[in-house]
Amino acid sequence: MGLDHLGELAKEQVQALADRANALRVGAAPQRCPGKALGLFFLNPSLRTSASFQRAAARLDLELVQLRGDGVWGLEHRDGVVMDGTTAEHLREAAPVLGRYVDVLAVRAFPGAGSFEDNRIDPIMSGFHRWAGVPVINMESARWHPCQALADWATLDQHQVPKPAKFVLSWAWHPKPLPHAVPNSTACMAAQRGMEVVLLCPPGLELHPEVITEAQALAAQSDGSFRVSHDREEALDGAAVVYAKSWGSIQHWGELETETSFRAELRDWCVTPSWLGKQTRFFHCLPVRRNVVVTDAVLDGPQSCVIDQAEHRLHAQTALLESLLS
Amino acid sequence: MGLDHLGELAKEQVQALADRANALRVGAAPQRCPGKALGLFFLNPSLRTSASFQRAAARLDLELVQLRGDGVWGLEHRDGVVMDGTTAEHLREAAPVLGRYVDVLAVRAFPGAGSFEDNRIDPIMSGFHRWAGVPVINMESARWHPCQALADWATLDQHQVPKPAKFVLSWAWHPKPLPHAVPNSTACMAAQRGMEVVLLCPPGLELHPEVITEAQALAAQSDGSFRVSHDREEALDGAAVVYAKSWGSIQHWGELETETSFRAELRDWCVTPSWLGKQTRFFHCLPVRRNVVVTDAVLDGPQSCVIDQAEHRLHAQTALLESLLS
Amino acid sequence: MGLDHLGELAKEQVQALADRANALRVGAAPQRCPGKALGLFFLNPSLRTSASFQRAAARLDLELVQLRGDGVWGLEHRDGVVMDGTTAEHLREAAPVLGRYVDVLAVRAFPGAGSFEDNRIDPIMSGFHRWAGVPVINMESARWHPCQALADWATLDQHQVPKPAKFVLSWAWHPKPLPHAVPNSTACMAAQRGMEVVLLCPPGLELHPEVITEAQALAAQSDGSFRVSHDREEALDGAAVVYAKSWGSIQHWGELETETSFRAELRDWCVTPSWLGKQTRFFHCLPVRRNVVVTDAVLDGPQSCVIDQAEHRLHAQTALLESLLS
Repeated sequence: MGLDHLGELAKEQVQALADRANALRVGAAPQRCPGKALGLFFLNPSLRTSASFQRAAARLDLELVQLRGDGVWGLEHRDGVVMDGTTAEHLREAAPVLGRYVDVLAVRAFPGAGSFEDNRIDPIMSGFHRWAGVPVINMESARWHPCQALADWATLDQHQVPKPAKFVLSWAWHPKPLPHAVPNSTACMAAQRGMEVVLLCPPGLELHPEVITEAQALAAQSDGSFRVSHDREEALDGAAVVYAKSWGSIQHWGELETETSFRAELRDWCVTPSWLGKQTRFFHCLPVRRNVVVTDAVLDGPQSCVIDQAEHRLHAQTALLESLLS
Repeated sequence: MGLDHLGELAKEQVQALADRANALRVGAAPQRCPGKALGLFFLNPSLRTSASFQRAAARLDLELVQLRGDGVWGLEHRDGVVMDGTTAEHLREAAPVLGRYVDVLAVRAFPGAGSFEDNRIDPIMSGFHRWAGVPVINMESARWHPCQALADWATLDQHQVPKPAKFVLSWAWHPKPLPHAVPNSTACMAAQRGMEVVLLCPPGLELHPEVITEAQALAAQSDGSFRVSHDREEALDGAAVVYAKSWGSIQHWGELETETSFRAELRDWCVTPSWLGKQTRFFHCLPVRRNVVVTDAVLDGPQSCVIDQAEHRLHAQTALLESLLS
Repeated sequence: MGLDHLGELAKEQVQALADRANALRVGAAPQRCPGKALGLFFLNPSLRTSASFQRAAARLDLELVQLRGDGVWGLEHRDGVVMDGTTAEHLREAAPVLGRYVDVLAVRAFPGAGSFEDNRIDPIMSGFHRWAGVPVINMESARWHPCQALADWATLDQHQVPKPAKFVLSWAWHPKPLPHAVPNSTACMAAQRGMEVVLLCPPGLELHPEVITEAQALAAQSDGSFRVSHDREEALDGAAVVYAKSWGSIQHWGELETETSFRAELRDWCVTPSWLGKQTRFFHCLPVRRNVVVTDAVLDGPQSCVIDQAEHRLHAQTALLESLLS
C-alpha cells in the first residue's frame, strides 16, 4: 500500500480524502494514532512538504523520524552492482531498515542524472516501495507528486470549482528545465476529477505519451476529457482554472544548452492578468518565480489560490495519514 | 505581535518575562499549550538557539515544525523583482505558507551580502513580520537578537546585579568582522534595565548612531544612562559587569582587507583577569573564541556567567512562548 | 555515567540490557519518562543511528533536541589554544551548555584529520564526557561504537547463537580506509559475551594492541577467548558467526596512496557463500558495499542477519535510555 500516484486510487477514494481534508481545514479533530510512527526521508530540499508533514504528524500524535539525504550515505539502487565507486549504501538495506523503525515511510527523491527514460522508471522511489516492508508515501519523485495533487483537488473543492469545468494546465517559461512530477500529477488529478482538461504548451513541450494516455483513461472514467493545445487564446477561453507550471522538454532532456536555446523564444509564456477571465482561478504549486512564471498582479490578486493550495498540503496529508494508519 | 526587538516591550513587560524565566529555572511548571505549533526556520547555523527552542517547545507541549535554510530554496525579498536569477522562492509566498502551518514562527536570518545600510533595514526578518500572518520571533537578524537580550536580563537578575550599576559592553578583537545584532540588543537591554551603560571600544568601532539614540532613549525612561568611551581604564573602573563581544566597523563594512588592517593593532582587546574587579561579572553570548576575545582564566573562573546566560536562553524563550500563546 | 564503551559495563549488565532489548522487540511496553530530554548531536552523517534514536526517544516519551554538526560552529577541543583560526566554539562551552538543556546527551564524532594516535584518545568524545555535566552516550567515535555492539549482542541472542561458539570478525576489502570503532567494539563485545573470537585479517591489518589486550581481558573474565589469525580457511572452519567489516591499517594511517597500494592485492577479501558453513550466520553493521565487502548471494540469503542487527539498534538504545533515565 502507501501512495505513489493519485490515480492508483478510485475517484471515490480521492474524493473522500479531499472531503476529509476540507473538514480538517474548518476544524474537525484529527484521529490521533498514538504509538505509531512516520518516517520522513528527504533526498532533496523541501519547505512546504517538510513543514506540512511535520505538522500533520504532530496533529495525529505520530512519532516522527526525520532524515535528510545530505545527512546520509549516497544511495545505490542498481541490482547486482559492484559498489566500489561513490555510493556507500544500497536501497536493499536502507529501505527495509527504515521500515523496521516506522509504520509509514514518506520519501522525496527528485530525478537523478541520466536520461529521461532512466528517471521515468523512478528507480529510487520504486526501490522504497519494493523493499521497505511498510507503506511508502511519495513526497515527490521523478514521476509523481500525489500529495500536491490531492491538496489541489481539495483546493478546487474549497473554491467550489465545478467538476464539468475547463481546467487549463499551462506550461510557463523558467530559466531551468524542471522535472515533470507536478505537471504529470496535475494533469491526471484534473482528469480524474472529471474536468475538461487542456494541456497548453508550445510544441515540443508535451508531457510524456504514457502520462497523456493515463490522463485520458482517467478522464474517460470520470466523464471528463483531456487534450493538448498549442493555441493559447483557444485554450484559455472560458477556463475555470489556469494552473501554471514549468517543465523541461523530453527531447532535449539532459542537454542544457540545446534546451536553453530551444526555450529562448518562449519568455512570453508568463501568466499575466490578460490570461484570466473574471472568474478564472489561478493555481501554482509553489515555489514560483515571480514575474517569470506569473506576474505579481496575478499572484497578489484575488483570483490566486496558491496559498490555499499550500495550506491544503497540511490537511490533505493529515487525511492521507489517517486513512493509512487507522 | 511577536518579538523583533526587546525595546518594543515596556520595561515592566520585560521584567515580568525575566521573572518568569527565573521561576522556570528554579522549577516552576511551564504552562502547556497542547494543539499549538511553533515553527523554527533557521537560515543560518545555530547551536544554543536551536537546542533551547526545541526544548522550550517540548516543555510547553508545542507541536514543532523545523526547517533549515540550506534545505530550502533561495529566498527572495525584493518587491517587483523579475526572478530569473538564483532565488527560487519569494518571502511573499514562503512567509504566509509557513504561517498557515503554525501559530508562532521563529526565524534566524543573519546579514546577507551587501552594504551595512542594505542590512540595517533587515529585509528578510521584516518580510516575515509583514507577511507571515502569525507572530514572528526574531532568533537573530542583522539588527537584533532579542532572545539573547531577554536571557541576559534574566541572568543579571539571577546573579543579583543591581539595576543602578555600571554595565560595560566592550568590543573585543576577533579575526572576522561580525554582525551587530548582539551588541545592539545588549546595549539597549542594559539601558532599558536602568543601568549605567558604557560602550567601550576603539575609535571607529561605535555602534550605529540609530542604535545609540535608541539606547539613550531607553536609558532615559529607566533612570539609566548610556555613553561611549574609548578609555579602557576609565570605563572598566567600578564595573559590575563586563560584557565582551566583537563586531565589525561600519565604515569598512564589506571591505575585508581594509577591515583586517584597521583592526590589526587591536589584538590587545582581549579580556584578561586584569580587566575585572573583584566583584565584576563576566558575560558573553557564546560562541566565544578562547584566548582571542577573552582568556581561559576569565572564562573558567568564578566570575564568568556565560553558561548561565546560555541556560537562560531556554527559560527566557519558554517564558516568551508562554506569553505569546496563552 | 553514560556509555562510551560497552566493556565499561559488567557482563551481567550488558546481558540485562540485551534481554530487555529482546523483550522490547517482541512487544514489551517501554517505560516512559515524561519530562526528561535527550539531546542528539551528530558531527557526522547518520541513517540508522539517527532514525533509531529518534524513534527510541519517542517510544520513551522523551523530549528531543537534535543538532547536526554542519549546522553549528567548528568545535575546538585543545586546552589552552588561541582560537584565531577556523574553530569558533570550544567544547568547554558547547558541552556544558547542551548539558543544561537535556538530561542525557548522545554524540557522534568520527575520527578527525591527524594521526592514529591523535584520534585514539578520542578528543571530542572525551571532552563531552568530561564537560557535559550529564550522562553522555557515544553514538560512534574514533574508538568505540557501543550501541552497535549492544544491538549485535542482542541479535546474537535473538538468533540463539550459543556463547561458547566461534565468532570470526573478518576484515574485508573496501576502496577507502575506514575507522576502527566498529571492529574495536565488535571484538570486545564478542569476547565479553564469552565467545571464541578470531580476528581474521591480512598481516598488517590487526587492530590496535590496546584493543587486543582489552578484548583478551574481557574474554578471560567470560570464559571466552580472543586470538588473531591470518589463515582464512582455519579461521572460518566451524564458525557460528562471520562478522565482516573493513578498516584501515594503522601503519599507513593518513597516507592514502600507500594504503591504497598496500590493499590493492586484497580484493579477494570479499565474503562469498563459500566462506560460510551451513549454520554460519552473517553479520555486518551497515552500510555495506555490495559485491565489494560481501556478495549479493550472502546478503540476500537466509543466513544474513544484517536487517535484524539494524532493527536491534532501536531496541538496544531504548533499553539503554530506560536504564540511564529511570
